[in-house]
Amino acid sequence: MMRMKMVGIAVSAVIAGTAWAAATRDEPITPIRPPVQVNLGMVELGKKLYFDPRLSKSGFISCNSCHNLSMGGTDNIPTSIGDKWQQGPINAPTVLNSSLNVAQFWDGRAADLKAQAGGPIANPGEMAFTHTLALDVLESIPAYVREFKQVFGKDKIDIDQVTLAIAEFEKTLVTPNSRFDQWLLGKDDALTPAELEGYNLFKNSGCVACHNGEAVGGNSFQKMGLVEPYKASSPAEGRSAVTGKDADRFNFKVPTLRNVEMTYPYFHDGAANTLTEAVDTMGRLQLGKKFTKDENARIVAFLKTLTGEQPKFTLPILPPSSDATPRPKPFN
Amino acid sequence: MMRMKMVGIAVSAVIAGTAWAAATRDEPITPIRPPVQVNLGMVELGKKLYFDPRLSKSGFISCNSCHNLSMGGTDNIPTSIGDKWQQGPINAPTVLNSSLNVAQFWDGRAADLKAQAGGPIANPGEMAFTHTLALDVLESIPAYVREFKQVFGKDKIDIDQVTLAIAEFEKTLVTPNSRFDQWLLGKDDALTPAELEGYNLFKNSGCVACHNGEAVGGNSFQKMGLVEPYKASSPAEGRSAVTGKDADRFNFKVPTLRNVEMTYPYFHDGAANTLTEAVDTMGRLQLGKKFTKDENARIVAFLKTLTGEQPKFTLPILPPSSDATPRPKPFN
Repeated sequence: MMRMKMVGIAVSAVIAGTAWAAATRDEPITPIRPPVQVNLGMVELGKKLYFDPRLSKSGFISCNSCHNLSMGGTDNIPTSIGDKWQQGPINAPTVLNSSLNVAQFWDGRAADLKAQAGGPIANPGEMAFTHTLALDVLESIPAYVREFKQVFGKDKIDIDQVTLAIAEFEKTLVTPNSRFDQWLLGKDDALTPAELEGYNLFKNSGCVACHNGEAVGGNSFQKMGLVEPYKASSPAEGRSAVTGKDADRFNFKVPTLRNVEMTYPYFHDGAANTLTEAVDTMGRLQLGKKFTKDENARIVAFLKTLTGEQPKFTLPILPPSSDATPRPKPFN
Repeated sequence: MMRMKMVGIAVSAVIAGTAWAAATRDEPITPIRPPVQVNLGMVELGKKLYFDPRLSKSGFISCNSCHNLSMGGTDNIPTSIGDKWQQGPINAPTVLNSSLNVAQFWDGRAADLKAQAGGPIANPGEMAFTHTLALDVLESIPAYVREFKQVFGKDKIDIDQVTLAIAEFEKTLVTPNSRFDQWLLGKDDALTPAELEGYNLFKNSGCVACHNGEAVGGNSFQKMGLVEPYKASSPAEGRSAVTGKDADRFNFKVPTLRNVEMTYPYFHDGAANTLTEAVDTMGRLQLGKKFTKDENARIVAFLKTLTGEQPKFTLPILPPSSDATPRPKPFN
């Protein structure tokens, strides 16, 4: 009886998320936790919306086009392709673990995933639609109408429901159980000696000052080019575009380094093709430090241990349009 | 003993695919059969390639972009979007059940799925790459090199392996167990009376002359505009472009009607937005017959019973590029 009671307490503690951290090593990076308090109906609906190109004017671009879940939640090109092949101004950040970010977009102009989700739909350079037109499409598709009603219990679909559902799906896109997290959680042989040396270099050189926490980044804004200026190939000004403060010029959200092996190219302008190049540039520009070839290789080896389990789910099947559904306009 | 022996025989016969048809109603449409003799290693590799935009110059377009498996294996726009947003000349046919087609493309210029798969990669208006450059990309990705070696047992990746693997995956994209097939296989109440009347109209009006067999089409070339000429919005000339024979002008492969509710818009130029419109046009132009509103509605109701089980699989995770991988060129 006593034992059963203790098990009961342990389970409650785990569910509440309090007993969890105790199991880890005391490091500035903490393991990714699976999502809690997820609304599964909303997740399934949001997954469909995430993959649905009918939320774009052309009927060709979905959230997954630029935040491709087959490719680390990015598009792996320097800047994204928008409606009519417009070139985007900035590198698409990964959607993986984005629920852990302090804010969304490189400049943090959206407070959370819900606020972010509405942006690209209505951005003339991205999906080039409007919220009203997107809602007209959804309202014309009987299976969507039923599913929204089932999930939200309302008679009409509104943009808040759309962005809430997409955000709820995105909350599930975390990548636990990387080899680095296995090591954090006590599996001593999860890292090779070179990878562990790479981590110690990463920690002791100061990288960890910005790249820390559960997402190994994503939790602060920092100046790109702290010690030496960065010559960006993108016109983006960073955080100052949001705050209006000159002091925030060229401050960007520190990107997560989770799954960084999959999220190339790097930096807000996508100018660095390889991790070797990115580590070298960051060392020089942010830390005033020139890593040797061997140090660089060890840090890169460590970074590759941050690749976690990728979200695993069945490709959603989208409900077909009805006769009343407004047709996409890809070429006008 | 006798009974066991009989069961043994029955099982062998089913595996060989011979005892199968006996279980069905005697109709000009036959049920979709699940694929046999599938090479699963090749399927898994082909699935990755099917979803991999690195087979395109831009790094943005994959097979799934225009033959989207979330949307009936099509893009649901009249003509497809290619590299740099070029407008394609013809409607993307569904990849679903395409293994049942007599040949591939609307004009049948590819004999089979393997021959088809190489086309879009190298078509300047579609993925705009070359086979050589696509192979350079694949050869630079260690996880692909290993997987090709595992599946094909050769030291070098060639285009035949790439197209074979994609074709093998496409062989799995069949959609059995539609309500119509359930009816064919003996479930009397699988169709409503109106749907059954629609089928009888479809059969007795002559639609079934071209739309028959397992795919309800796909097994012959026929003239578009047999009784009355069709005013196409596409410049495509059809089968004559392949045979050089003037008699084949405007002959196109009869499209499958499987999952037709999902594969809008219709015809080789994608000019018909709804099934109602497509049925009306086909009746007039191919059969010289004007269906009443009620007849049209019943035929449409029947057509919607041809939606089968959509392919169900986990979204593939693509192996990341290496430092040596040539980078996509989306904007030059």
